[in-house]
Parts: sequence; C-alpha cells; structure tokens
Amino acid sequence: MATRNLLLLPGDGIGPEAMAEVRKLITAMNEKLGSGFTTEEGLVGGSAYDAHGQAISDADMAKAMAADAVLFGAVGGPKWDAVPYEVRPEAGLLRLRKDMELFANLRPAICYPALASSSSLRQEVVEGLDILIVRELTGGVYFGEPKQIIDLGNGQKRGIDTQVYDTFEIERISGVAFELARTRQNRVTSMEKRNVMKSGVLWNEVVTATHKAKYSDVKLDHMLADAGGMQLVRWPKQFDVIVTDNLFGDMLSDVAAMLTGSLGMLPSASLGAPDALTGKRKALYEPVHGSAPDIAGKGIANPIAMIASFAMCLRYSFNMVAEADRLEAAIAAVLEDGLRTKDIMSEGKTEVGTTQMGDAIITKF
Amino acid sequence: MATRNLLLLPGDGIGPEAMAEVRKLITAMNEKLGSGFTTEEGLVGGSAYDAHGQAISDADMAKAMAADAVLFGAVGGPKWDAVPYEVRPEAGLLRLRKDMELFANLRPAICYPALASSSSLRQEVVEGLDILIVRELTGGVYFGEPKQIIDLGNGQKRGIDTQVYDTFEIERISGVAFELARTRQNRVTSMEKRNVMKSGVLWNEVVTATHKAKYSDVKLDHMLADAGGMQLVRWPKQFDVIVTDNLFGDMLSDVAAMLTGSLGMLPSASLGAPDALTGKRKALYEPVHGSAPDIAGKGIANPIAMIASFAMCLRYSFNMVAEADRLEAAIAAVLEDGLRTKDIMSEGKTEVGTTQMGDAIITKF
Ligand SMILES: CC(C)[C@H](C(=O)O)[C@@H](O)C(=O)O
Ligand SMILES: CC(C)[C@H](C(=O)O)[C@@H](O)C(=O)O
Repeated sequence: MATRNLLLLPGDGIGPEAMAEVRKLITAMNEKLGSGFTTEEGLVGGSAYDAHGQAISDADMAKAMAADAVLFGAVGGPKWDAVPYEVRPEAGLLRLRKDMELFANLRPAICYPALASSSSLRQEVVEGLDILIVRELTGGVYFGEPKQIIDLGNGQKRGIDTQVYDTFEIERISGVAFELARTRQNRVTSMEKRNVMKSGVLWNEVVTATHKAKYSDVKLDHMLADAGGMQLVRWPKQFDVIVTDNLFGDMLSDVAAMLTGSLGMLPSASLGAPDALTGKRKALYEPVHGSAPDIAGKGIANPIAMIASFAMCLRYSFNMVAEADRLEAAIAAVLEDGLRTKDIMSEGKTEVGTTQMGDAIITKF
Repeated sequence: MATRNLLLLPGDGIGPEAMAEVRKLITAMNEKLGSGFTTEEGLVGGSAYDAHGQAISDADMAKAMAADAVLFGAVGGPKWDAVPYEVRPEAGLLRLRKDMELFANLRPAICYPALASSSSLRQEVVEGLDILIVRELTGGVYFGEPKQIIDLGNGQKRGIDTQVYDTFEIERISGVAFELARTRQNRVTSMEKRNVMKSGVLWNEVVTATHKAKYSDVKLDHMLADAGGMQLVRWPKQFDVIVTDNLFGDMLSDVAAMLTGSLGMLPSASLGAPDALTGKRKALYEPVHGSAPDIAGKGIANPIAMIASFAMCLRYSFNMVAEADRLEAAIAAVLEDGLRTKDIMSEGKTEVGTTQMGDAIITKF
C-alpha cells in the first residue's frame, strides 16, 4: 500500500481545536478501518513565530515537502499584529503555497440543505447551491516583484505590488478548471478585468486558447470580475465552476462562501501538479474560515470546515472516494439531526460544542 | 450667478436613452425654475471610436476639462470587443477620470424602501440600508506602470500590471471619507489586504495617521478586503462609510450595489480636489450600471440611476441641496406609487418604459 503520511499544522486561534477533531477521526479510521495514516505535527503562523521567530521553520517546511498531504488549521490574531511583515502569521501559509507549488486552490461553495435558512440571502437563491471556485494560488499580485515600500523623502512613501501572470500559469489553472467541470455540470466561467488589466487580457486569451485546443466540449463563458461578484450575489446558481486569479479568487471565494450562510462549514484544497513519474501531487487542505481569535479556546468553534477539508484530502490525495463520500454524508446527517455549533445555531436546534460536533460526525461515519 | 455648464456624454448602449431623461429634466428646470443650465454634448466609448477612432477625442476631453460638471451615461458593448486595447470603450472613461484627476469616487448603496423585497438578500438584511463607498479612482493597478504584455518567446507571454499608491493619494482619499462620515454616522471602515500587499500596508498606515492627525472624532475600523466582501453580504448595515482602493472599490461597490436589489437605481459621483482659489472641483457623475447592450434601444432601460446621478451633481457641483433633495424624493415617490421599469418589476406594480419613468419623476419634482 502507498504511504499515507500527513503533516498536521494546526496553527493559531481555533485552528488547534478544529484540528483535534480531525486527529480523533484519523485515529478512529486507523483503528477501525486500518487506514494506515501516519501523522507528524508542526507549527505555523503566530505559534511558529512565538516558538522560533519565523512563520514556519525550515524543518517544518521540509516535513511539508515530504508529506503525502498537509492539513492546515488557521493562522493569525491580534497578538501578532505588530510583528514584522516578513514573519507575520500569513507568511507561513504563503510560503507553504509557494514552495510546494500549490497553484490550484479548489473552493467549493455548497449550501447544506439543513442550513439554507441561515444564509443572509433568500432561501430560494441559495438552496441547493453547489459551485466550485478554482483560484490560481501561486502567482499574481501575491508573489509578483517588485513588492516593496519605498521612502520618497518629504514624508512621502510609495507602496508597490506587481500583478504578473505567464501563459503557462494560466494554462495549467484553466486545465484544472476544465477537468473538474467535466466531473460536474461541464460549465466554466472565467473571471478577470481585461478592460483594465493587461494580465486580464492575457488571462482571457490563454483560457480561450486552452479551451479551444483541449476542452471544447466544456461550455466556457467569460465575465468581468466585478460583474462576477454582482452575479454571485444576484443568482449564484448560474455558475458551475469559476476560474480566476489569486486576488480575484480571494475576494470572490469569500463572497461565495458567505452566500452559503455557513463559513464555518467550507473546506478547501490546494493542489500542485501531478509528478511526471508517480502521478502524486503535493497538497494542502484548509478550512476557508480564519483563526477567529475572539472565540478561540472556548470549545465552541465549528470543526466542520476542518473535517470537510479532511474529506477533500481523502478524495484528492488518497483516492479514498468511498470514505470521502461517507464523511461528507456524516456531516450532512448530524446537521439533519439538528446539531449546531454556536455560529450556525438557530431556533429549535441543539447547540453543541466543538468536541461534541466532532464526536457526532465520527459516530455517524 | 456662477456658471452651470454641463457636458453630457451619453456613450453607448442604454446610455443615450437614460441621458435623454436627464436632458428633459434640465430643460424643465431651466424653464420652470430658471436654473440657468447650459449644456454641451460629446461622444465617449464605442460611439466615439466609431466616429473618430478614439474612445474620447481631444476636443471632447477639452470640453470635459472646461465644464462645471460632466454627466456620463455608459460605455461598451460586444460591437467593440475586438477593438485594440488602447481605444476600447472603457479607455474613454479611464482617460476622463485620470486627466480630470477625479480621485474620489462616491458610490452610495441605498436600499429604497419600495424595493427592499426585490433584493436577493433577505428583506431584514437590506431594508433601510444606507452605506457610502468611497473608492480611490486615479491610482492603483488601474494606472500603475509597467502595464504591458511581454512576448517571452517559446509561445510564452507575460502580462504585467502594477499596483502603486503614494502617501498623498491615500491621505486625500481618506480625508474625503472622514469628511463625508462626519455628515453621516461618523464611522469609516478602511479596507485593504495588508497581509499580502505592501500597498495595503502603506494604505493602512496612512489612513491611521490621517485619522489620528485630523479626524480622531470619527470612529475608524480596518478590515481585510476579502473579509469586507463577506461582511457586506452577511450584514451590510454594520457599515457607514467604506474607504478603499481603486480595484477593491470596483469589486466591493459592485457587490454593495447588488445588495440593494436595484442596480439600475444607483448613482455615483467622481470628484477632484477643490481648486485652491475658486474652491470649485472637477466632477463627473455616472450611473453604476453598465451599457446593457442587450436591452439598448428598446425603451425599457431604467433611467433612475442616471437621474439620481444628476441629483448628486446638483448636490456636489452646484450646492443645489434643496433641488437634490426634491429630486431624490421624487424618485422615491414614483416608486411608492408603484411605477417600475422592467428590471425592477414585481407583481401588482405598474410596468413603464424609460420615458414614462422619466416623465413621472419630472412631474413629481
Ligand atoms: C490568510 C491570507 C493570506 C489568505 C489569502 O489572502 O490568500 C486567506 O485570505 C485565504 O483566502 O486563504
Ligand atoms: C468600465 C470600467 C473600466 C469601470 C471600472 O473598472 O472602474 C467600471 O467597472 C466601474 O466600476 O466604473
């Protein structure tokens, strides 16, 4: 059997609490199903900074590079607001993405039937929603150089960031989007600002060419990113797969996540390219929610996004499709049973804490 | 009396139809109130390109520079999808903004009581909504250099855009936001991505310093732009004034506009700095909606955003506050009476065309 080595990076805030539930699940799978997972642990974000002055140590980076998959909790919090830019908590996550070359970020926005009424959108607008945002994750304004603040004298400074995309980067991310669309409703909407940005012009051109060359069976539409944000709010069900760049993907996937009314529920996968020889791809799985420092340590955080991220891990890194399906079904089942953490609590439901929610899902699994 | 010279730039698509209603209103004000408006006309966008191969001619630019205020309709459409980047319809609008130094874009997102039920958001989430987005409009990735596509050979190209902000640009836009907040609920939320962008770090720093130096009576919060997008969808009424950069402002104001359920209703003002001697500021007023080529020429476009933009013009360029208030009240009144254009039509209301809607507002005015 292939190895199943996981690196767990719980991070800051509610990260460790959510990760604890996944750890229990892994133990249960090893004991009951003989799944054969091995795990290592590492530090990232503020907790890594506190331990050794970096947002992730070289030793933990090496573990991440060697692991079959990385599970990531969350990073950041007011405690580290004043640390230098280079070692701020987010730098750990950005280094993982960049050094592992995790260019494809998959962010499903799914509205669980049991939660359709907790969205700020009308029930009919979000009920049954199932869209997938494919965000480019290693390029664009996140990593382009120059990226600096220059002192111009006279009390003036200049802040500079650079948005850069090369043809091959756009080709590979749109390839991922088209492939995934084929397993879904076979529709892709590409979003950029070609009316303002040259990188948007190139983006549009390369997506169109990739479609024509290899994926003409998939329906492709183009939308300006600002119009896309509007349409997500107006009628999100018009979309199947959305492919977009790093910064637009950051904004649009957060808006999409909020539509579902359950930020604490949404997982994500960040994938590298398949290895030419082994077919294996580097991967990191993380909840879309942040570290939520205000509720950290209280035992009330919603572990579902973290557990659902582990389901994506089973699916994409270990091809354990049946187990992934069962885990997702277990999540839906506890919600149907009326169990709710505080963030998704509503009248007539049963409020539970982080560990009870995790236990209930493991029991149903 | 000071001059009241207007340049009307109807543009493309539904722009001319919407502008026609404002033209009637101007005539009525001159005849009945002796308002003394004089008007000139010009071309912008695709219609300018068709006439003389440019998105706006130097002659029309000169008129815009000389006018007391510019009224702008909308630009663009599939007809011009293949024209060269430099002369695409949007280039006309971007040149107007840049050459007139219209750095402050004011985008109110107001939910008219009569329309609260037509939003895709739950009524209680948007009812009574009144937020103002102050978007920086002459800097950032829209105008930063380099902005180009480089041919790298081997079938590879590189698309580059540059996000640049200087201290003075952030100072002046945040000054506008703080001043406007004082006339409202006295609260400003500044949005950027300081966790990823150096320009975001500088933005945050300068807004904080400006607040401390001159506006410490105003309540200031900072939010990451992606979280801001989420919060707009979750509970928009938490905001009063939002100040943000050109690209985030583009995305966030479109999301905010869609919350109100009535894109065809929302105006905007783009303002320059007051002249040191005369106190006059250059200004351009435009609806937030686009050219909507699919419904152009059918007489069904909603003219309200254009008329409401003219109300902002009365308020900000001519200090005709009473008239602006009355015009806005006239819009609300026809909506209360049940008149609706097709885009906002709902059961039990009376569907009217562009000219009937315009006439009804003028009658109530
Ligand atoms: C934490 C931050 C650097 C990150 C990003 O901007 O990519 C987050 O917002 C996300 O979307 O994963
Ligand atoms: C037409 C386009 C260039 C423009 C922009 O991106 O600023 C529009 O989307 C807007 O928001 O006014």
